[in-house]
Parts: sequence; C-alpha cells; structure tokens
Amino acid sequence: MDNYAKRGVSSQKEEVHNAIKNLDKGLFPDAFCKITDDYLGLDDSYCNIMHSDGAGTKSSIAYLYYKETGDLSVFKGIVMDAIVMNVDDMLCVGAFQNFLLSNTIGRNQKFISGEILNIIIEEFDKISNWFCEMGISMVLTGGETADVGDLVRTLIIDSTITTRIKKANIIANDKLTPGMVIIGLSSYGKASYEKYYNSGIGSNGLTSAKHDLLNKIYKKKYPESFNPEIPNDLLYCGPYKLTDRDLRLPIDIGKALLSPTRTYAPIIKEIINNFKDHIGGIVHCTGGGQTKCLKFGKNVHYIKNNLFDIPPIFQIIHESSKTSYKEMFKVYNMGHRMELYVDRIIADDIINISKKFNVDAKIIGEIRESENNKLTIKSPTGNIEY
Amino acid sequence: MDNYAKRGVSSQKEEVHNAIKNLDKGLFPDAFCKITDDYLGLDDSYCNIMHSDGAGTKSSIAYLYYKETGDLSVFKGIVMDAIVMNVDDMLCVGAFQNFLLSNTIGRNQKFISGEILNIIIEEFDKISNWFCEMGISMVLTGGETADVGDLVRTLIIDSTITTRIKKANIIANDKLTPGMVIIGLSSYGKASYEKYYNSGIGSNGLTSAKHDLLNKIYKKKYPESFNPEIPNDLLYCGPYKLTDRDLRLPIDIGKALLSPTRTYAPIIKEIINNFKDHIGGIVHCTGGGQTKCLKFGKNVHYIKNNLFDIPPIFQIIHESSKTSYKEMFKVYNMGHRMELYVDRIIADDIINISKKFNVDAKIIGEIRESENNKLTIKSPTGNIEY
Repeated sequence: MDNYAKRGVSSQKEEVHNAIKNLDKGLFPDAFCKITDDYLGLDDSYCNIMHSDGAGTKSSIAYLYYKETGDLSVFKGIVMDAIVMNVDDMLCVGAFQNFLLSNTIGRNQKFISGEILNIIIEEFDKISNWFCEMGISMVLTGGETADVGDLVRTLIIDSTITTRIKKANIIANDKLTPGMVIIGLSSYGKASYEKYYNSGIGSNGLTSAKHDLLNKIYKKKYPESFNPEIPNDLLYCGPYKLTDRDLRLPIDIGKALLSPTRTYAPIIKEIINNFKDHIGGIVHCTGGGQTKCLKFGKNVHYIKNNLFDIPPIFQIIHESSKTSYKEMFKVYNMGHRMELYVDRIIADDIINISKKFNVDAKIIGEIRESENNKLTIKSPTGNIEY
Repeated sequence: MDNYAKRGVSSQKEEVHNAIKNLDKGLFPDAFCKITDDYLGLDDSYCNIMHSDGAGTKSSIAYLYYKETGDLSVFKGIVMDAIVMNVDDMLCVGAFQNFLLSNTIGRNQKFISGEILNIIIEEFDKISNWFCEMGISMVLTGGETADVGDLVRTLIIDSTITTRIKKANIIANDKLTPGMVIIGLSSYGKASYEKYYNSGIGSNGLTSAKHDLLNKIYKKKYPESFNPEIPNDLLYCGPYKLTDRDLRLPIDIGKALLSPTRTYAPIIKEIINNFKDHIGGIVHCTGGGQTKCLKFGKNVHYIKNNLFDIPPIFQIIHESSKTSYKEMFKVYNMGHRMELYVDRIIADDIINISKKFNVDAKIIGEIRESENNKLTIKSPTGNIEY
C-alpha cells in the first residue's frame, strides 16, 4: 500500500468508480462529465450537465495558514478551488457558459467564525462575477451552509454547477485518434488573468502534499487539522513551516500549497470557438494526475515525452517525501492540468491562444495506436509505463 | 447561550443569514428558495432554481447504528434525507418536476467502506427512480465522492437539485394574507408511500437530539462520532442506547432518530395542480422549526393554536433533555414539517388530499394582522410568543 492509501485517500478512486459502475453513463458515455437528456427544456437538440466537486483537503491547509498568520485571504483561494474544479471539468465537454453555481459548506463553528463564513460566501459571488467579466457567464444561485461539528473537523467546501447546452456542441472524447498530438496547458506561473504566481498545485493530492511537506509542530498545535487515524509516521512528517521559503518559489510553502486552482476557461473557450472540429478530446488532469487520460479513448497509447519542467512545488514534494516519480505522476498534475488531443495542423494556433493569456503551452506528446489503453511518461529518471 | 449553541449549532442560522444578507435575493425575494433568471433557456417566461442541502449530523447517527447493529440499511435513510431536504424546499416555491439531482459525499475511508459507498450511491439512483414513479420526475446527473479524512470524521452527504419552471407557476410567498388558515401536514406516522413508521424527526436538530438522547457509552466507543469541542456535560448525556425501546414508539430509539425525512411531494403536487390560486404561501419547517414562518410574510401574526399532538420522539427528547418548549419549537418541527397558508374555502379539500396519502392534516392555526411579524404557539404549558 502506498503512502497515499495509508493516509486514507485513493488517487485512482477505485472504490468510487466501483460504486458508480452500474449507474447509467448518460448520453455520451465516453465524455469527461455525465451528460443527460434535456430535462430542463425538453428539447431533443439540447442536453443538461450538472457537476459537483470541491476544494477537498486544501481547506484544512487554509485553516492552518490562517491560524498561523491571521491571513484571511486564504479562504478566498479555496472558494476558487471549489468552483474551478467544476468549471474546468465542464470545459472538457465543451461547456463554458450559462453556468448556475451553488455551494455546500460544512463547518465546525468552534473553529470557523461567522467572519470567515462571510468571506467565503461573498467570494462565491465575487468569483462568479469575475467569470462573467471573462466571458464565462455564471450566476450564484444559492447554497447551503451547515454547522456540523460532529461531522466536520474544520471546514469543507463543495460546489455544483449546472448548464444546458446544444448536443452538437458537446466534446464527447470519442474522437481520440492515433496521430493526434497532445497539447498541455501549463498549471504554474502567472496567467494574464491571475493576480499572483500560481504554484500549479491544483486541488488534488493535497492530503499527501500537506503531510509530506509540513512540520510535526502542527500536529500538537492543531489537532483539529488532521485525521487522527493517519499513522503517526505519515502525519506532518515534512521539514517545512507554512511561512518557510524555498528559493525556487516566489511565495512561501504555505501559499504554494494554497495557490488557487487555475482555471483554463477563457483559453478553452477561445480554442473551442475557433477549432472545435479539430479537437479529439480534452482531459482535465485531476484525480489520477497525468494518468487520468487512461480512462478515455479506446486502443490508444499516450506518449508523453515532452512534458513541462516539473514545477518547483512538485520538485519540493518529491525531494521531501522521496515519493517515486511513478506515484507522483499518478497523484499530481506535475506541470499541466489541462490537455487537448488535437490534429497536428492546429497545434500552433492553440499554443498561441494559450500564450496570449500568458499560460505556457506546448506539444507534450502524441497518441499512437495500441491493443489496449496505455501510457508512457518520460520522467527525469527514465520512461514510466502505466 | 442555549445548549444548542453550546454544541456549536445555531438553530436560527444567524451567522449564515448574516453572511448572505448582501447577496442578490433573486427574482422573487420573498420566496422560500432563491429563484434566478432563465440562464438555462434564456426565455423570459421561465426561471431557474438550484438548491442545496444535506443530511447533516444524521449521518453520524447512521454510522453509530451501523457499528452497533451491522444494519447497513440506515445509510439508505440518510440518502433520502439529503434528497428530501432539497425536494421539499423546492415544493414551497411550486416546483415538483424536472429535477436534476447531484450529490456531494465526503468520507473518512477508515470508517466508511467501499461497500457503504456502493449502498449510498446506488440509493441516490433508486430514490430518484422512486420519485419518478410517484410522478415527480428526477434524474441523477452524477456527483462527487471525496476521501477527505483530514476534514470529515465519518461521513457527510449533501445534494443539489436544479430545475427550470415557468415564472407563472412560482409560489412566491408574497400573498400571505390575514384571514388565511394555516394547514399543517403531519411529519409522523406512516404515509401510504412510506414502508415504515416515521418518527417525524426530519433532518434538523439532530446534533441536539443525538446528544440529548444517547448514552455516554458511545463517547468512549466511537470517538470519531462527535465533535470533541462539545463540553463534556453536553456530550452523549442521554439515557438511551440505540436499540432501546420506548413504549410510545413502534421502533427503537436509534431508528426513531434515523427515520428518513418524509417527502410531501406527491401531496403538494396534487394540491398545487388543483388549488394554486388559493395558496398564499408554503413553508417547510426546517431550520428554525415552527418559528421558520417568521422569515416570511409582512406584518402578519401567525397563530398556531391547534397543533398536532407532539410526536413521541419529541416528547422523549423533551423529557430526556429538559429542554423548554420554547426552544423545542425553534429546533424541531414538533409534529408537522410542511405548512400551507390558504384561503379557508379550500382547507377541507387540501386536508382530504393529504389524508388520501395517509398523511394526517388539519387547520393548525391562522394568520392575523399585526404591526410586525410575530408568532404565538399554544404549547402544553401555555402560550409561547416569538
């Protein structure tokens, strides 16, 4: 059992996938999100998508950072995480507008004050307005905030997005064809629409990143910040305090763990509006990291042999935790959190659109034929096969 | 500070209401749910509703019951809670069909197995089919299940429902008129569409009910089942084991605490289809219990002087906890979880519709004129003013 599993988290979500295996797969069973008939409009040419996701364990790191520094802005970051984890999944099926947004927040009132709730709920509203300003129409429809200290140690934030879209506009991930190139959009740096440097961490693997990087002092100081069932040797076993610096990063370790998940919405919108017919599929490299693609396509061999330099935050996790690259690529995005499978002829155009938003992009690999789905990743220590 | 507050829960949700006070109130600001423009269809005659809620603390009682008895069916009950808490809120604005349903589940993998996840996720599907069979069309669009042991002690289950409805069909709670009668629909007994006796507990006040009724033995046995920040004298301070019986109840105490929240959907659908023009408003007596109505209407005095007999589960909580009736009515539904404000002329028709489904119903009071909103409840110990 790997450390990820020992900490009570499954990077591949085997048990969840098993639990949903008998459920209806929707209208486009190969698509990144489940898509249903148009229950909302009863129009045969339309379909509905309703999608849920959240900030996960990252909220407990925000809590730690706030307690140590008094910086309340970290709670705004996790609202962005809870929203973007939904939006960017929906981008993969070609949906980028008319989003209804709702939240579900569970708190322990002892640790999360009314002032923090205010910040969180207002931020949901502000971020939905920010998306509108970027051309991604979104409205906050409401939500539920519950005082559930018997269930929640500190804070959990999820959100759900609903939209309605023409079937003809769906990207169903059913055209992943050998010969197509894979374009990765960088997860780190500073996009033109971001205010600060983004470490690229996203919202996956945070249970591991937190305990692999952060120092034992937090165990005694904040018993409410972790699962006491985690074996002691895997609990806050890192060298860093939240405000420690590493020269490779322009922000402290805490803020690097808390970089809000970058949305690719304005970039993907422009790409789809111009080149939809050349897109075979889009995958958001979330749970499963760089191996997520294996769930999509049929009889394809993904070759990822030209990845981005591993961003400093993942280098630091690797050094601190001694986690193998094979496991790292399964847990973290490692440099790009969005990948498109496209005809080579439009690769330069797509790359240029992304770079216009100051998000680095490049051909990171290609699709080849195969008897069954497999993946080869060129890592710093050689090729890894999945 | 009352015991409810000392346990870290606010029955009136003051902090939440404060946090949302600056947000846009939607198209029908007096309505029970927030209602937005038709982002999903861009049709002026339609509007959208997206609503979130969950099973709350009840899932920790399901966990306890399962651990003590091995009975896995209790997890099905809390799925019903998570769905009905949404559906029945939406009934209050006149929405009873074309429901898209999504869930957000957070678990501690150490305590909640893959087998339990299977039961929960399949139950979401089964219950949405069950609603369809009752004429309330609903489809499970998907959901998110996260392993978040650093956040969640055992299990948290929320759900979100979206629908699209004609503006003309909205019940906006803006016609609550002096002279109207208040009809209550019983929360306990056994409806024609229920399989078992329902205690009427619903999904509110469960933190209090749990600790007021259950025995200290569970503190040591299941430290994962409660908030360690609760003062010791308020923690599992009741006399009962989960499988203990009280002669007033046909089920044990644990199952009485776990009775799935009753939906009134088939009843309300028939009432609205026949008598919409005579309905001034509908209120789902959830957070705030019998005082919830105070948030609705303008310059009205709610007189509730003919309530149902207090169901055994609430009598038992009252006796065990010595909680005053004034607080009990603010926390629990105390006998009816749905109330309609209607013209007296249709009272008998509405009562007959409800009774057809074996849900007791009666005129529990009336609306009078007042300089500001107030409420009088006739309790077993005299009148209580709010």
